[in-house]
Amino acid sequence: MNLPPAFKRYRSGIDAELRSVLAGRETPLYEMIRYHLGWVDEHGHPLQDSAGKALRPTLCMLACEAAGGDWHKALLAAAVIELVHNFTLIHDDIQDDDTERRHRPTVWSIWGKPQAINAGDAMHSLAHIAILRLEDRGVALEKQQRAHRLLSETCLRLVEGQYLDISYENRFDIGVNDYVEMIDRKTAALIACSLEVGALLGSDNEAMIKGLFAFGRGLGLAFQIRDDALGIWGDERKTGKPLGSDIRRKKKSLPIVYALERAIGKTKTALLNIYEKEVIDDQDLDAVLGILDNLGAQDYTQRIAHKYFDGALEEIRGLPLVPARARELVEIARFVVERDF
Amino acid sequence: MNLPPAFKRYRSGIDAELRSVLAGRETPLYEMIRYHLGWVDEHGHPLQDSAGKALRPTLCMLACEAAGGDWHKALLAAAVIELVHNFTLIHDDIQDDDTERRHRPTVWSIWGKPQAINAGDAMHSLAHIAILRLEDRGVALEKQQRAHRLLSETCLRLVEGQYLDISYENRFDIGVNDYVEMIDRKTAALIACSLEVGALLGSDNEAMIKGLFAFGRGLGLAFQIRDDALGIWGDERKTGKPLGSDIRRKKKSLPIVYALERAIGKTKTALLNIYEKEVIDDQDLDAVLGILDNLGAQDYTQRIAHKYFDGALEEIRGLPLVPARARELVEIARFVVERDF
Repeated sequence: MNLPPAFKRYRSGIDAELRSVLAGRETPLYEMIRYHLGWVDEHGHPLQDSAGKALRPTLCMLACEAAGGDWHKALLAAAVIELVHNFTLIHDDIQDDDTERRHRPTVWSIWGKPQAINAGDAMHSLAHIAILRLEDRGVALEKQQRAHRLLSETCLRLVEGQYLDISYENRFDIGVNDYVEMIDRKTAALIACSLEVGALLGSDNEAMIKGLFAFGRGLGLAFQIRDDALGIWGDERKTGKPLGSDIRRKKKSLPIVYALERAIGKTKTALLNIYEKEVIDDQDLDAVLGILDNLGAQDYTQRIAHKYFDGALEEIRGLPLVPARARELVEIARFVVERDF
Repeated sequence: MNLPPAFKRYRSGIDAELRSVLAGRETPLYEMIRYHLGWVDEHGHPLQDSAGKALRPTLCMLACEAAGGDWHKALLAAAVIELVHNFTLIHDDIQDDDTERRHRPTVWSIWGKPQAINAGDAMHSLAHIAILRLEDRGVALEKQQRAHRLLSETCLRLVEGQYLDISYENRFDIGVNDYVEMIDRKTAALIACSLEVGALLGSDNEAMIKGLFAFGRGLGLAFQIRDDALGIWGDERKTGKPLGSDIRRKKKSLPIVYALERAIGKTKTALLNIYEKEVIDDQDLDAVLGILDNLGAQDYTQRIAHKYFDGALEEIRGLPLVPARARELVEIARFVVERDF
């Protein structure tokens, strides 16, 4: 399954915009950011490709066009959203002790945790500095203000989600509702914000702005749930994550939360015993995968992802969107729930 | 030496404003923030006093009045500045492995580093959300925009300063100029910003805004240098830090940077040998204190603090400030260079 064409269309524009936000910031602090974004290697030598799919900025641009706007107006906001996303990734990697991301060593694993905290904080500040320049792009001050408010509240939601995610680590009483509350903040909030801000910059139609926000929320939930499935059953060659990696990391991802909720008797005891261990070994991993199989966790997970996908589509039905762009939004949503990377 | 009266005059207003920024944010994430601000103990039980002197918000309010403005206009910005300052303190404590601040356990030492990173990130976001509400206080959108820009650029400067501070840890070739470059960002930037934003909200007189910014910068440098002196020679009962604590922590504070620059021959070798050790013991501490004495480091440090104090006063000379408030600014500046806590 390949990336839909919309990703490619905006790619160079988003990339150039991101580079302009960093332009003139040349001290070593910013080298960590350039490294994280995939522009340079750890010695500062330029690389060919940027890192990541740029899902969120792509959705921001597409929402702007779908709402009838000129995508140039959304470019800066799209770059800002990618900065916010990446600031949280740098901090997440520190918090989760992850040594690899996108097939490369994480920032903290090269520069140490204290400096990696600074890299994330600097990106967070850069995002706010950049969004204040929307005015120079012909966006009215009131609208810029509203976009900035949405973005700042979304940053807070991301942190709330990350707080919940970490607080769930040593808890076994987490139900599917708790899980959804967490990913709604940790993942869906920024994807919804990407679409809402894109729509806001492309249109004054409040129904359209609201509809695209709600579409983004459903899409964001579906995205995270698909991610959870890939984190357990994904193909290592495509995801870069070994089979069952989220089990070894004891993540409270949807398949596990579902299994903890559904398992009874000996199965439940076995599951809890494994999750209470310091380290999950190969044998434990097989046991957990067996339990998930018996409970139909993979089917369940994909069903829930599709439920949110269907709900997302419902949110934009009947809106006066630009048809070609609306079709692309649906195409991306379908990619999100069916992707294998 | 007591806190000048201006601190007390604004205290309850700043405190109420800060509490209103946090109002309605009730999940456990925000408990960490309330704890850090000294409002509750680690179990969430209310405490009598707030933590810290609130130097920066006090200067913001005073600058607004000194520039001829109504201090109510600066209240929200003052609270935002205190949030920014405290977000960086929470992250600094993680980075420096400090287990105590203001005579209390640090946030990370109670909740762990991953959640403490979230507490800092949340405060950073809250600061941006709050400053966007300046408009509701009758501040024109253009002025709010400018204040927000100053604040965001200042956040970035703080992170740059923290980056330098950490990068100096294992270096012995740091000179006084490098040191000043670091504290200019790490400390002086936010103090200068406090005065500049206060003046901006109180007046349209650009000379006054610029002058108060420059006054703040000098004051900020003097503040940090006095802090460095207290970190080595301060009275533990007053500062809460044991004698020589910054030596044990191997901080590149001004007395040490000066000594490294000035020492020659055997003295230099002795100093380097001690600083290359894993742990600095009591005997090492005495040796370093002896070297600092021989080189006149304490006199030098206080002389430099006074140099910046004098420079700060020069910056506001001749400005049409409200005389009573200008006198209070000078009084605070004098407190900053002479305080023993």
